[in-house]
Amino acid sequence: MKDYTIDITLSEARKEKPVAEQLQFGKTFTDHMFIMDYTEGKGWHDPRIVPYQPLILDPAAMVFHYGQSVFEGLKAYLTKDEAILLFRPDKNMERLNRSNDRLCIPRIDEEFAIEALKQLISVDRDWIPTAEGTSLYIRPFVISTEPFLGVAPSSRYQFIIILSPVGSYYKEGIHPVKIAVESEFVRAVLGGTGTAKTGGNYAASLKAQQVSNLKGYSQVLWLDGVERKYIEEVGSMNIFFKINGEVITPSLNGSILEGVTRNSIISLLKHWDIPIVERRISIDEVYEAYKEGVLEEAFGTGTAAVISPIGELFMKEEKLIINNSQTGELSKKLYDTLTGIQTGKDIDSFGWVVKVN
Amino acid sequence: MKDYTIDITLSEARKEKPVAEQLQFGKTFTDHMFIMDYTEGKGWHDPRIVPYQPLILDPAAMVFHYGQSVFEGLKAYLTKDEAILLFRPDKNMERLNRSNDRLCIPRIDEEFAIEALKQLISVDRDWIPTAEGTSLYIRPFVISTEPFLGVAPSSRYQFIIILSPVGSYYKEGIHPVKIAVESEFVRAVLGGTGTAKTGGNYAASLKAQQVSNLKGYSQVLWLDGVERKYIEEVGSMNIFFKINGEVITPSLNGSILEGVTRNSIISLLKHWDIPIVERRISIDEVYEAYKEGVLEEAFGTGTAAVISPIGELFMKEEKLIINNSQTGELSKKLYDTLTGIQTGKDIDSFGWVVKVN
Ligand SMILES: Cc1ncc(COP(=O)(O)O)c(C=O)c1O
Ligand SMILES: Cc1ncc(COP(=O)(O)O)c(C=O)c1O
Repeated sequence: MKDYTIDITLSEARKEKPVAEQLQFGKTFTDHMFIMDYTEGKGWHDPRIVPYQPLILDPAAMVFHYGQSVFEGLKAYLTKDEAILLFRPDKNMERLNRSNDRLCIPRIDEEFAIEALKQLISVDRDWIPTAEGTSLYIRPFVISTEPFLGVAPSSRYQFIIILSPVGSYYKEGIHPVKIAVESEFVRAVLGGTGTAKTGGNYAASLKAQQVSNLKGYSQVLWLDGVERKYIEEVGSMNIFFKINGEVITPSLNGSILEGVTRNSIISLLKHWDIPIVERRISIDEVYEAYKEGVLEEAFGTGTAAVISPIGELFMKEEKLIINNSQTGELSKKLYDTLTGIQTGKDIDSFGWVVKVN
Repeated sequence: MKDYTIDITLSEARKEKPVAEQLQFGKTFTDHMFIMDYTEGKGWHDPRIVPYQPLILDPAAMVFHYGQSVFEGLKAYLTKDEAILLFRPDKNMERLNRSNDRLCIPRIDEEFAIEALKQLISVDRDWIPTAEGTSLYIRPFVISTEPFLGVAPSSRYQFIIILSPVGSYYKEGIHPVKIAVESEFVRAVLGGTGTAKTGGNYAASLKAQQVSNLKGYSQVLWLDGVERKYIEEVGSMNIFFKINGEVITPSLNGSILEGVTRNSIISLLKHWDIPIVERRISIDEVYEAYKEGVLEEAFGTGTAAVISPIGELFMKEEKLIINNSQTGELSKKLYDTLTGIQTGKDIDSFGWVVKVN
């Protein structure tokens, strides 16, 4: 780990904390934030924790024009005995650097980034909510700040971490969602930026999501951009199907995001000796399994919602009702186990959980 | 046109203007900028011209995370008799709204946007450079500003226009460039955002460009993301080939940007009775034409460089030298005619040029 010292300036005024019942996802932010600058030649420098404050950027800053930015998302939980737990932060920082590589953004020392995160959370520890289903959402991100109108990698960046106390991602908690297969729009294609967590992928997804929201679906299921038949992922989740006792998830084919939750679920399933396979899976295969009555469960996985059982899948002009629109047994077990480990209620035999101080 | 009044606050201190010979592309900005806000429910409001100044944005502003942004690029020229000319600004504003639609950003009144642009340029008219090849580059853009960490269209935006006096895009002026066909990375795919001028497309292009720069090529030639053999466009230019007397440019297939320069060139060629066809064209076809000695010229077209003759095209592990690495006759004629019209030296029989006051 590089030997940086983080300069800390505490906020004089503290904001009022939201009441647990009113917590929404991603709307409230804590009293402090972490910032670090990058300048060509000098590298990453000047790490600091400062009062949460606006960014002051030239209107020509490249992030506004050419979208050179990446981000991450993870959560911190407070246990009954007041310990703060992070879930696999090393995985997020590894992915941040993979995203950086794809977007021509200079790498960040991963160990140091975790250290920065820990210090920031310690400063704002009072903000970690404790009610069931709540947590402190952590958003590390990098933006390109050089004021230059030309398509080229920026020579300046800021790496920032902000924190947001959150309730459940879906207002309903763990509750089956309705998802529609997307046939017009494409999220990402091999050779593009699908494996990176960069703004453009999400901007590209808005239109399809808007259209499907109007039809009563909460998110879309993306298909591959080439053959338009292989399943990729959901809005901000990877996807799993349980067909005839076997669990299947699309393999990391170069256009989907490698989810930390996805990876953890694969490990859990293997640990439980439940058949799990990563491979290409077509929409036709899912449809046929449904028709044969062997599509037992389907669920999305991601940091925000952890597990989102899919109760209805719209495809081929038909509504496939999965597991009677109920949360499946496996979905529930995975949700309970994963959140049990994340919140420190259950024993973590995988070494996934990292304590802050 | 909507009836807005633009509030003008003049800058007290004026910046020093760069000398013509030292003008770089997109590095210097004028004394003022235009801003207008959007809030859900209220619509676009509060248009104003203010001193060029930093944007002050919450670190959770959606543009930093989910890339919801669009932009445009056009130029203003000062004629010998001190008139200010814009080139087809209606086309840029039309495209801005097409980009807005794709990115779920509320539309902007196009006529008003042109009016705003004119007023801003009038205020900063002293900044328009006059030396050969120079102009005032105009960058309208929209960013999403709601502080919210959730993948959804923002409820707040800013529409901003900044101005930059520029020299030639390529330091060498009109001079053949070297371009490499890109076989690993993909810029855009049908169903994605390729037809919109949005940051994510440019962020996605950086890696390929970086790799090809290292090999001595200034930009890459993108192929389609599905079959990986049809020609799409160059970094920030559309492309034309002259093969055996006929000019061919890829058709607007749903993944390339509809260039204003492209459109103007098609009109010019038709006007001159030079055969011009918009259709799918594969890399193999270009290669064969080269081998048969009938690939007469190739050039990129875009606002920044106007016409960029292609002197060398790298593909299939081979360097195709086009027209002896010289600027072709047609490329030169198109460049002279277009810049002649744009700068008011030649008569504009197409009604393309718009006067500012
Ligand atoms: C596109 C996409 N896929 C999948 C995921 C799930 O990844 P993780 O489990 O690391 O949160 C996310 C969310 O981070 C995402 O944005
Ligand atoms: C991707 C892309 N293609 C083509 C063009 C050319 O468009 P125009 O002629 O309108 O400048 C541009 C530049 O604006 C561009 O960014």
